[in-house]
Amino acid sequence: MITRLSTLFLRTLREDPADAEVPSHKLLVRAGYVRRAAPGVYSWLPLGLRTLRKIEGIVREEMDAMGAQELLFPALLPREPYEATNRWTEYGDDLFRLQDRKGADMLLGPTHEEMFTAAVKDLYSSYKDFPVTLYQIQTKYRDEARPRAGILRGREFVMKDSYSFDMTDEGLDESYAAHRAAYQRIFDRVGLRYEICKATSGAMGGSASEEFLAYSDNGEDTFVVSTAGDFAANVEAVTTVVPEAQAFEGLPEPVEHDTPASETITALVDWANSAQVLVDGHEVTAADTLKCMVVKVDDPRAVTEGGEPVGPQLTGILIPGDRELDEKRLEASLEPATFELASEEDFAKSGFLVKGYVGPRALAANGVRVLADPRVVDGTSWITGADAQQKHVVGLVAGRDFTVDGFIEAAEIKEGDPSPSGNGTLELARGIELGHIFQLGRKYTEAFDVQILDENGKRAVPTMGSYGIGVSRMMAVVAEQRHDDKGLVWPVAIAPYQVHVAVANKDAAALEAGERLVTEFDAAGLEVLFDDRPKVSPGVKFKDAELLGMPFLVILGRSFADGIVELRIRGGETLEAPADRIVDQVVELVRKQTAPLAG
Amino acid sequence: MITRLSTLFLRTLREDPADAEVPSHKLLVRAGYVRRAAPGVYSWLPLGLRTLRKIEGIVREEMDAMGAQELLFPALLPREPYEATNRWTEYGDDLFRLQDRKGADMLLGPTHEEMFTAAVKDLYSSYKDFPVTLYQIQTKYRDEARPRAGILRGREFVMKDSYSFDMTDEGLDESYAAHRAAYQRIFDRVGLRYEICKATSGAMGGSASEEFLAYSDNGEDTFVVSTAGDFAANVEAVTTVVPEAQAFEGLPEPVEHDTPASETITALVDWANSAQVLVDGHEVTAADTLKCMVVKVDDPRAVTEGGEPVGPQLTGILIPGDRELDEKRLEASLEPATFELASEEDFAKSGFLVKGYVGPRALAANGVRVLADPRVVDGTSWITGADAQQKHVVGLVAGRDFTVDGFIEAAEIKEGDPSPSGNGTLELARGIELGHIFQLGRKYTEAFDVQILDENGKRAVPTMGSYGIGVSRMMAVVAEQRHDDKGLVWPVAIAPYQVHVAVANKDAAALEAGERLVTEFDAAGLEVLFDDRPKVSPGVKFKDAELLGMPFLVILGRSFADGIVELRIRGGETLEAPADRIVDQVVELVRKQTAPLAG
Repeated sequence: MITRLSTLFLRTLREDPADAEVPSHKLLVRAGYVRRAAPGVYSWLPLGLRTLRKIEGIVREEMDAMGAQELLFPALLPREPYEATNRWTEYGDDLFRLQDRKGADMLLGPTHEEMFTAAVKDLYSSYKDFPVTLYQIQTKYRDEARPRAGILRGREFVMKDSYSFDMTDEGLDESYAAHRAAYQRIFDRVGLRYEICKATSGAMGGSASEEFLAYSDNGEDTFVVSTAGDFAANVEAVTTVVPEAQAFEGLPEPVEHDTPASETITALVDWANSAQVLVDGHEVTAADTLKCMVVKVDDPRAVTEGGEPVGPQLTGILIPGDRELDEKRLEASLEPATFELASEEDFAKSGFLVKGYVGPRALAANGVRVLADPRVVDGTSWITGADAQQKHVVGLVAGRDFTVDGFIEAAEIKEGDPSPSGNGTLELARGIELGHIFQLGRKYTEAFDVQILDENGKRAVPTMGSYGIGVSRMMAVVAEQRHDDKGLVWPVAIAPYQVHVAVANKDAAALEAGERLVTEFDAAGLEVLFDDRPKVSPGVKFKDAELLGMPFLVILGRSFADGIVELRIRGGETLEAPADRIVDQVVELVRKQTAPLAG
Repeated sequence: MITRLSTLFLRTLREDPADAEVPSHKLLVRAGYVRRAAPGVYSWLPLGLRTLRKIEGIVREEMDAMGAQELLFPALLPREPYEATNRWTEYGDDLFRLQDRKGADMLLGPTHEEMFTAAVKDLYSSYKDFPVTLYQIQTKYRDEARPRAGILRGREFVMKDSYSFDMTDEGLDESYAAHRAAYQRIFDRVGLRYEICKATSGAMGGSASEEFLAYSDNGEDTFVVSTAGDFAANVEAVTTVVPEAQAFEGLPEPVEHDTPASETITALVDWANSAQVLVDGHEVTAADTLKCMVVKVDDPRAVTEGGEPVGPQLTGILIPGDRELDEKRLEASLEPATFELASEEDFAKSGFLVKGYVGPRALAANGVRVLADPRVVDGTSWITGADAQQKHVVGLVAGRDFTVDGFIEAAEIKEGDPSPSGNGTLELARGIELGHIFQLGRKYTEAFDVQILDENGKRAVPTMGSYGIGVSRMMAVVAEQRHDDKGLVWPVAIAPYQVHVAVANKDAAALEAGERLVTEFDAAGLEVLFDDRPKVSPGVKFKDAELLGMPFLVILGRSFADGIVELRIRGGETLEAPADRIVDQVVELVRKQTAPLAG
């Protein structure tokens, strides 16, 4: 097919839009792919829609290939199914809620576990119908607090969501593995650089969970990869490599010291070294100190005997002094419970909490639950608060001088930490979530009371997986990874057009030659964007071509009279080529880039 | 491609859903094409989604072929553009409104004139950019008061809407004609029986307007066609054939009569005939009488000198006694004014209105505006109310004894009325609106102040056309027109699969033969639905096949051992065919049904 720039509904912009911070947002707006309609809500102009449809096509092909069946649920949904799973409330402000003319509560679907589960319950009743995997490519709505970065995090966006239903846990493992492989093919086909990261299961209550994170400095997610290449995880899902417990024998007894004005770790280390305190015979570092953070944890599952919620409870979090508390990791570890830092008022109310000098002993003595970083194993010796103004204790040994109620992943991950895989150390990277695969288990099938007759005629509840890909986001992620200061650099697989032909001479003969050439490209099965604008200068045409980012730009310039055209590979080299060979040459280059993937 | 019924996410139902009234609704639910999620909101199951996508594909092909450019606007829209055109308010309860987490007013788009107009204003500034036609295939929302008939009138539905922008009125005529031709191709390709009906322009204020109405006894619209085949129109758009005015000479003077208990036309005619009143020498019929209906008309455009709205005004509507008032026609004629019938209170307040005996003379004498049916031309003589209890007047002549302030189309259209085209008479039919094409004019471009530089460097406002097709509705309309008591009867163009293959023998050899056959169909490029369910009886398989409605059903039954298969053409004949010829035979039948249309 041939599209002419002289008539295409497009206006490129030389200036970045005022509200754009990241390259994909700036470039997709400047190049006329998308346009803002409201905060976090975008219109798709012709070029953007073509790329979106190509991404959808790749996702659809791979989902179909794995045997998933496509259907399409509404975006406008009734409240009741989301009430059944409590998500009507749990979603909070992220959910777009509305009422119809009769006052019935409705919502704009943020994800469709409820609808798919209800559909399976409606249609299926025997184990013979299983396993089944269903998917849709559909417009979703989430009222993000801070919609940002254009289509990278919109409030109306296109998602592929799929759901597997299996009668056995082994079946779920297989469905999960099939999705994992399909997702790899999808992201490989669009040429993304990404890691499959271990993720937390969170409140969903399932087991295995992995995120596909695309490398991007503008990503909101931090993840780690092992230098040995055998481990990647979202920071929330990294488990600390636990040192071995030490014997107590020979460890000195704890000694309390006056440590004036040493509320901070730095001040404490300075004091220790000026007081010539040694730990294991070496100078004290922050890693030898133990921070006792006090938070209030509110666990919705904790109720009194009378069934009343227990409400927020003081909790101590022990963390080696060389690390900060990572609130996101703590949040993930506590989920579904939530936390906030203890306030001045909390300190005032609990006399045993001496701000700046809190230690594990007073917490335990006063019935406060204490959760420690996994490094605080038995036999480790710490400099920590002595629960009295201006006093610290040196040589307080875990398991001997204090005990904890449990361990928790709450400390920050640092570059160079040992990899949980046992090989190499961790490197930190920023990423954008492309997809998430998740073994949900029976939470939803139980909520909807899905009863299936098994081989023995007994009722059984199928187990579910939930899998998502941000389809419209993927376009922005590709733009984040593939651009230069001149514009977008699309891979062939999702470029709106494979070839861009520009006539750089203004005479009618050149334009006619261009017409002949694009007809040949079209006949060869390529999609061609033809810059046939008669009164636009070659310079502007080239600038536009670079901004729009088609993989191959063919220019009919001065040498065309001598049978030579210029071929600029976007993001690559520039060649001269014989005009009568150029179609074959580009066809070959396109073929190479879209060749079936190995495996 | 091959899809197997053994794994397809489908459950056919033997019973009609309780809420279904029309065949398309019953059958599409029973056959597992769609499923209700909320009132007027439907989920698309795999078969339904395939047909929907095929319809979208046909619409897209024809829109692209006419040079329209596809883009995609959001469904979730900000209030402001709809405020600019007053539709935020005018849409009333039909609009889904909501607020985001920051309290900003938003809506779910019911139609997108505003967004397209704003986009053209944003991108284009010179006459050289015009004409341009833009379209989208998109999910729309209208909070219908009575969502009915499944996907025939849903609250969430798929629509193709397009908008043409031209610098001249002649250009608009061309864009309109191009749409009209494209719509004909679209509806012809899916095999619909329809009429292109003249429609009213309504409040949109434009000029030419036509509706594509599909024949259906379950339609909500009534339309007329001329027996001469040269005229079709929505009843609201039919103009009365006006008789010639008559000379007054020789017409008898009006005479008042006591007409006790003759408030109704029937009673009045009975009185006239028992009193041996003759009109033009013949017995009196209802057509000789004139009804004076009193209504209150509220015209939002009517304001006092001080700018206050005038409010509802008494208005007399004169209609020949053999016709009822058609409230929809009156409504369309008055638009944007609205009306209601005068109440008892109105009669009580206006002493000159004698209920059951109102005549045109008292109305005019008391300053009430009088609008007459176009048949009430000068020189026509009527039996009508004498504005006094129990009294009528005979021989009251229009133009001589009373005058009117104007004419109005408010009387019902009757089968046999003369066609406005001058040829034939009108027949009445019921229909469902498939599409609407409409010359909008400059209403929206003016509201958004779209200023374009013309060839002389002067600012000009482009003129618009607005065109819509109910894409999801089209599927229901085809089902309405094409079904029998056993199920759906899809045309090849939009059937989910072209061929349905059923193995009627339960032995493994038959199933294997079926596998070979569907592989051959697939290799020949056909889409095959394969009923490979091993434990389902032939009877149930045939029933399901009829319900699902693929165009061609191939059965491997007893004669298959002798090289014979059965071919059942859905809605047509049943043939026996040699197994080794069946693929070619079906390919040929499919080719015939999808051959390019003449012209």
